[in-house]
Amino acid sequence: MIRSGIVGGTGYTGVELLRILASHSEVDVAVVTSRSDAGSRVDALYPSLRGAIDAVFSLPDVETLATCDVVFFATPNGTAMQMAEQLLARGVKVIDLSADFRIKEVRDWEKWYGMQHACPDLIAEAVYGLPEVNRALIKSARLVACPGCYPTAVQLGFLPLIEQGVIDAGQLIADVKSGVSGAGRKAELATLMSETGESFKAYAVSGHRHLPEIRQGLEMAAGKPVSLTFVPHLIPMIRGIHATLYGQLNVDQCDVQALFEKRYADEHFVDVLPNGAHPDTRNVKGSNMCQIAVHQPQGSQTIVILSVVDNLVKGAAGQAIQNMNLMFGLEEDRGLNMIALYP
Amino acid sequence: MIRSGIVGGTGYTGVELLRILASHSEVDVAVVTSRSDAGSRVDALYPSLRGAIDAVFSLPDVETLATCDVVFFATPNGTAMQMAEQLLARGVKVIDLSADFRIKEVRDWEKWYGMQHACPDLIAEAVYGLPEVNRALIKSARLVACPGCYPTAVQLGFLPLIEQGVIDAGQLIADVKSGVSGAGRKAELATLMSETGESFKAYAVSGHRHLPEIRQGLEMAAGKPVSLTFVPHLIPMIRGIHATLYGQLNVDQCDVQALFEKRYADEHFVDVLPNGAHPDTRNVKGSNMCQIAVHQPQGSQTIVILSVVDNLVKGAAGQAIQNMNLMFGLEEDRGLNMIALYP
Amino acid sequence: MIRSGIVGGTGYTGVELLRILASHSEVDVAVVTSRSDAGSRVDALYPSLRGAIDAVFSLPDVETLATCDVVFFATPNGTAMQMAEQLLARGVKVIDLSADFRIKEVRDWEKWYGMQHACPDLIAEAVYGLPEVNRALIKSARLVACPGCYPTAVQLGFLPLIEQGVIDAGQLIADVKSGVSGAGRKAELATLMSETGESFKAYAVSGHRHLPEIRQGLEMAAGKPVSLTFVPHLIPMIRGIHATLYGQLNVDQCDVQALFEKRYADEHFVDVLPNGAHPDTRNVKGSNMCQIAVHQPQGSQTIVILSVVDNLVKGAAGQAIQNMNLMFGLEEDRGLNMIALYP
Amino acid sequence: MIRSGIVGGTGYTGVELLRILASHSEVDVAVVTSRSDAGSRVDALYPSLRGAIDAVFSLPDVETLATCDVVFFATPNGTAMQMAEQLLARGVKVIDLSADFRIKEVRDWEKWYGMQHACPDLIAEAVYGLPEVNRALIKSARLVACPGCYPTAVQLGFLPLIEQGVIDAGQLIADVKSGVSGAGRKAELATLMSETGESFKAYAVSGHRHLPEIRQGLEMAAGKPVSLTFVPHLIPMIRGIHATLYGQLNVDQCDVQALFEKRYADEHFVDVLPNGAHPDTRNVKGSNMCQIAVHQPQGSQTIVILSVVDNLVKGAAGQAIQNMNLMFGLEEDRGLNMIALYP
Repeated sequence: MIRSGIVGGTGYTGVELLRILASHSEVDVAVVTSRSDAGSRVDALYPSLRGAIDAVFSLPDVETLATCDVVFFATPNGTAMQMAEQLLARGVKVIDLSADFRIKEVRDWEKWYGMQHACPDLIAEAVYGLPEVNRALIKSARLVACPGCYPTAVQLGFLPLIEQGVIDAGQLIADVKSGVSGAGRKAELATLMSETGESFKAYAVSGHRHLPEIRQGLEMAAGKPVSLTFVPHLIPMIRGIHATLYGQLNVDQCDVQALFEKRYADEHFVDVLPNGAHPDTRNVKGSNMCQIAVHQPQGSQTIVILSVVDNLVKGAAGQAIQNMNLMFGLEEDRGLNMIALYP
Repeated sequence: MIRSGIVGGTGYTGVELLRILASHSEVDVAVVTSRSDAGSRVDALYPSLRGAIDAVFSLPDVETLATCDVVFFATPNGTAMQMAEQLLARGVKVIDLSADFRIKEVRDWEKWYGMQHACPDLIAEAVYGLPEVNRALIKSARLVACPGCYPTAVQLGFLPLIEQGVIDAGQLIADVKSGVSGAGRKAELATLMSETGESFKAYAVSGHRHLPEIRQGLEMAAGKPVSLTFVPHLIPMIRGIHATLYGQLNVDQCDVQALFEKRYADEHFVDVLPNGAHPDTRNVKGSNMCQIAVHQPQGSQTIVILSVVDNLVKGAAGQAIQNMNLMFGLEEDRGLNMIALYP
Repeated sequence: MIRSGIVGGTGYTGVELLRILASHSEVDVAVVTSRSDAGSRVDALYPSLRGAIDAVFSLPDVETLATCDVVFFATPNGTAMQMAEQLLARGVKVIDLSADFRIKEVRDWEKWYGMQHACPDLIAEAVYGLPEVNRALIKSARLVACPGCYPTAVQLGFLPLIEQGVIDAGQLIADVKSGVSGAGRKAELATLMSETGESFKAYAVSGHRHLPEIRQGLEMAAGKPVSLTFVPHLIPMIRGIHATLYGQLNVDQCDVQALFEKRYADEHFVDVLPNGAHPDTRNVKGSNMCQIAVHQPQGSQTIVILSVVDNLVKGAAGQAIQNMNLMFGLEEDRGLNMIALYP
Repeated sequence: MIRSGIVGGTGYTGVELLRILASHSEVDVAVVTSRSDAGSRVDALYPSLRGAIDAVFSLPDVETLATCDVVFFATPNGTAMQMAEQLLARGVKVIDLSADFRIKEVRDWEKWYGMQHACPDLIAEAVYGLPEVNRALIKSARLVACPGCYPTAVQLGFLPLIEQGVIDAGQLIADVKSGVSGAGRKAELATLMSETGESFKAYAVSGHRHLPEIRQGLEMAAGKPVSLTFVPHLIPMIRGIHATLYGQLNVDQCDVQALFEKRYADEHFVDVLPNGAHPDTRNVKGSNMCQIAVHQPQGSQTIVILSVVDNLVKGAAGQAIQNMNLMFGLEEDRGLNMIALYP
């Protein structure tokens, strides 16, 4: 059994890790830390886990965490970078669900995240944990930086076109919508049900932290600079991300549907829907799938890609465990075949 | 492997059977019928099942269904009673999720359901599928009538007190609230999102079909007539039932918390919460658990029991599979340890 | 024009006062205070009020407020009692939407609200602002204590029966459900959309602060002690309260429908629905109406009353303005005939 | 008083007309027709209108409707064109909220709406009822074709840029999201709460009927062909449309904020928010306002416009009454200053 630890077990990403790991046949959840709830039983805070998780929150402590084979960081940005080095030094693999190791250019990271990076030396080693792009690297990684939720949905949607160079990298638009759980489990006015229920809005149009991350991923795939307009929105629901992506075809002929099907033919967690379909976030709620559909309205040069994930699963905890499976030589889908909860 | 069939695979109960059975290690879903969608792939109608269910809807047909070891009826009331006899005669076990075999008194059934019963002779044989009451009978049953969703939450909440005779059976009140998926997957004005979203109401206060079913169960437990006021309500959400139950204690001293804990000590799917807790429907969403809490406000004689289930799982498909496990000698919880989806 | 002030203009009750007063032909909103947002334009915080309210939040200050004819307190409990005396002394009428002056027995108040009362001498003078009970007193009051949201729905539902003595005052049950806006505009985990959306739960079953208030009102009407079990619940929606009330008829014959219709025949804001109806909270959303329906299921002695209000209107701001109209000799419904927003 | 009639009073648009007209000081609602509910009181079907509307549904009949000064058609497409000619001949003004007279090119209309037009001769006379564009024409019109909900939000957002020719008309993108009330009050599976709640999806990406309408309006403003990609989405909420519009600036310098403020300086129902704002659909819920914000992220050439309306008010019934006010020489905002319901 793999002995796992979770730092930051009281956020939505932490609870989702617990939900999935509790049913994973090869993993034990040995340590779950929380500064605010140390000493409480995990299932006292989360009655949904009664009978499934028999653990008590402890204070985050390197000595305890070092007894694990792998430690997941489900923490606010800026925490993982404080502890990663020590854990790696003790032979522990680290899977970071926060943003600390996602951006290769440290100055960029510091600008967007508004703090100094605590261990810039590790950034180069960290592997960006999008298995559909970096599978081989992830298998041998000690430190994996899991993609953000928006970046997962957007990159998986754009990659086939970008990699083949069939769309104009100079004018990409990502109009993306997220359920409110993406804002995390924090006492804030803005995500009260009275504020977000029965309403819809865009936010951070002038610039969102996931923009440089998406751009970096697309530029790696394109092999050149890309220009991307990224507009995130808040949906009055809990789970789910829907990315509506727009690009201009720069070739005369292109069977876009076939291109997507071929690109993802061997991917377990990316499902290209039949031509003309409209993926619905409910169909991936609670599952690790990304469902994608491709459209070319009225035969124009504008390609519209629809890409949906559950922000807490393929957009966070599920993808982290997918990475863990790869890092420990397990089947990539082990423990991850949960079916979406419909209705 | 147990070869199973599902009649009526296009309702919410049918899809939920498919979701759970797809992950059940001992069962194959061999036949899924639908009059309206025969010929279509199941996962074309339900993209949430892509990759999990490889089946095509067929027309309901006794010959085909007779090749199964067990057939689930997830049909509107009045369908199972047309086919159950033939299937049983062919050695197929029948688990009915509709109301056809729930009420022992055929005249009562015909009054509340507004039709003539097609095979009244089978009613006596049918075992009421509430494992927490009828486990032994279910194990040897050929025909199981699964309880309704409201009756499951209400009976599990009242039973410990009724069985011990510590509350007045003459004045029971069940104020029960359900998510809209309980109304089924039917094109109806009343359950449009524009009609039920952001609103709350009671319905059928003058009499709901689940009233005689609950009364029958409580009277069996009490060994005498009971008087019950049952008021159902519609919650603006999809899944979940919350029963708030009121009874008058008729003994001077009674450790109600201990009584509940003892009654359900060996039950895998009934979880008595600590004293003073308030179960939340979200904590059983997608799971087969019933969570119960008991209160005695201000030390009065009025006992308040809070009981929650997912109407589509413990209130329908999950309980049906729990019954199937018992009927086929499997562990009762096989395939049923899904953890609730929170948040 | 009546010159009005609002203390605590940034909560939901405060904004709702502003929405209604902005269209009131006899009232000017002269002062709106907020400790946290002093100096900001009101419509910068609440863009829904752009073009309707031309005011800037100021710090709460007796001198400024004393220039008003009437001051509304839309503040947390414990604030109005600090300022009411001074304002009254300056000839300002005070309408308190908080709980400071609702409970006549100061010791009771201090127990339930966990603080010492700052001006117990005023409690006797304060008139409980339920116009359907205290209309005459309100007209001549200087200080009105507006009822809580739950107490409004519950008292209006029980009063006709209690006043006539036709139900057993010893076993009243109020199973009441509220939208989340009742919890106010505060950064709290418990009312995040991710926590309350798609879920339903009871809370404070052991005792809620509205219990003594409801009991006091019912006892005034009954002329004797009453015993009430009050269980509040949280509905996954924003506005609306649905009270489901249970009482035992203690007379042989009683035309309950007629009794309600007669009791409320002259009431503008209490609407008794036809026999057999089920009021829906959506039908009073944004309006000052209380809609009530009465049931006697299966001819038993148990009476079921269904009573709905918008917690922020008839349960708070609308009722406060109804009181203001009475205090200033205006028609009671002036500015209050907003029609519910459906769908 | 203006005597008004409503054909098709049982849809959401019809009820919304009733809600607004009930408070309009210059209009009487004399006739409300409904084929399905003729003979019933309007407030029996819509208890939200109790006390506000004293009318009975009648069968649609030209003789009765001809007694009105103005008739609103809140009907499915294809109905207004059957009766408009006769009513106009009788001197009745006609305001059509359906699509029958929106498209000037009859062949286009017939292609997109899949039926033959019943009175193509009237199309030329019909005035497209967007007051912000056609105010003068509307004042003297006999027949007004009210814009669709999506076209209202999209055109008001694009017009200032298109009219000034500062964006490239060849690559416009409108990513638009609507609450489910836009789908109307029809018994359909797709808009059940269990289907649309807690989920988000695009639909009709290959082509939606509002596309030719929007294109026609933008081409009128541009004076040349435009190329538009229009992707509608369904939001899990009831009311509100949020349009996120993308265009490429084709001039070096342009103070876009000033351009919008100037264009709408005299418009009562178009409110340009301060620079950097993000309009929220909740802030126009129940009101006739369109709130717009403009962004130019990271100083690129891509302009992002955010435009919100309540689909049933400015997107339908409110705009229809705004047109009526103009046609009858009333102040344009008479009866239309309802403030949005927040929260």
